[in-house]
Amino acid sequence: MTTQPLSPTARSTVRRGRRRSVADRETLYSILDVGLVCQLSLVLDGSPVVLPTCYGRVADTLYLHGSTGAASLRALAGGAEACVAVTLLDGVVYARSVFHHSVNYRSAVIHGTPVLVEDPVTKLEGLRAVTERLAPGSWEHARSPTPRELAATAVLALDLTEAAVKVRAAPPGDDEEDVAAGSRWAGVLPLHQRWGDPEPCPLLPEGSEVPAHVRGRGGQPLG
Amino acid sequence: MTTQPLSPTARSTVRRGRRRSVADRETLYSILDVGLVCQLSLVLDGSPVVLPTCYGRVADTLYLHGSTGAASLRALAGGAEACVAVTLLDGVVYARSVFHHSVNYRSAVIHGTPVLVEDPVTKLEGLRAVTERLAPGSWEHARSPTPRELAATAVLALDLTEAAVKVRAAPPGDDEEDVAAGSRWAGVLPLHQRWGDPEPCPLLPEGSEVPAHVRGRGGQPLG
Repeated sequence: MTTQPLSPTARSTVRRGRRRSVADRETLYSILDVGLVCQLSLVLDGSPVVLPTCYGRVADTLYLHGSTGAASLRALAGGAEACVAVTLLDGVVYARSVFHHSVNYRSAVIHGTPVLVEDPVTKLEGLRAVTERLAPGSWEHARSPTPRELAATAVLALDLTEAAVKVRAAPPGDDEEDVAAGSRWAGVLPLHQRWGDPEPCPLLPEGSEVPAHVRGRGGQPLG
Repeated sequence: MTTQPLSPTARSTVRRGRRRSVADRETLYSILDVGLVCQLSLVLDGSPVVLPTCYGRVADTLYLHGSTGAASLRALAGGAEACVAVTLLDGVVYARSVFHHSVNYRSAVIHGTPVLVEDPVTKLEGLRAVTERLAPGSWEHARSPTPRELAATAVLALDLTEAAVKVRAAPPGDDEEDVAAGSRWAGVLPLHQRWGDPEPCPLLPEGSEVPAHVRGRGGQPLG
């Protein structure tokens, strides 16, 4: 599979920490396909707003969804620009100096103007992607959306063309003199995300078994 | 300790999912004091931008820092508005219907205009808060910032007055008919964050011991 390099527009060009910049599309996909929540920012009434929300990806499209009544969704459906971040925090970097303390992370930031999805087939595809990112297997297992539920839900499609990807996965980057002094500890404390055990809804019929698509995820690391 | 309720301005009033809204300041603090990375959004050249970054809190002030050369920091130092989100994802809510799938989370969203910290004492206090949020104990253990490092670092203070806090920590909220049908599984799959074992820098002198402030965090849950 060939992929296009990420877009080199002015605003998606990494300026701070250039050496952390990653220009391949596969890394972008890999971040989006592990994250569960993105941070959606837009301008509302002249002010910046950032909102955590779920998302899904199909090829080079990021899908977002929300209530048709939400001010943010309405603004975006009306053509407002968006910026979306997905951040995976992998650890804290303890350096010998306060100045070089840092974090190990995988970060994707996408710029673009989302488009309201009107085609019913594409809308279902978008909702499926959002659902399956969050809860793989749920699209088949759970009750499908009714026409009324679909009418209350807006789906937006954001093209993944313009994106900036940064990855830090390294030991501390201390100054030579601090390394030579050898008097202070430095290293990485990794941070792991792991699924716990399923907590069945108290309203389930007695004896309900946890289905395989949930049971199989329990106890596993995220990603 | 008495605390002021959170600000009820139009943009910090939770409109979607009102029942998830939490109006006490202690919950805001508890979210900020567990999170490690925030999402900082602002308007740059007319477009929304969101950037993951570290932060620290002292009383009712959130401190942010960055290179004096970063475009985002320069814009904020020049008076641009910001919106900052800290999101803790606690689990995926598997509902009986696709429509009611959700996440359990703790979310803080802060609106305001950060102020560049010029006073040297306050600047150090801000940097200390950022460092200690990320790596408790490092401010004492690691080498302190030099005048040159301080000059290269901008610190911004954001007042926590105007904030919206939402918490979901509940089983699925399915429709009655779906619950009555009893044919589909529903519940919560919790997501946990935990520190791993310290990974010492390969450049440390042989026999360097992991100090207590790092060792004690290893293996512990986040928060």
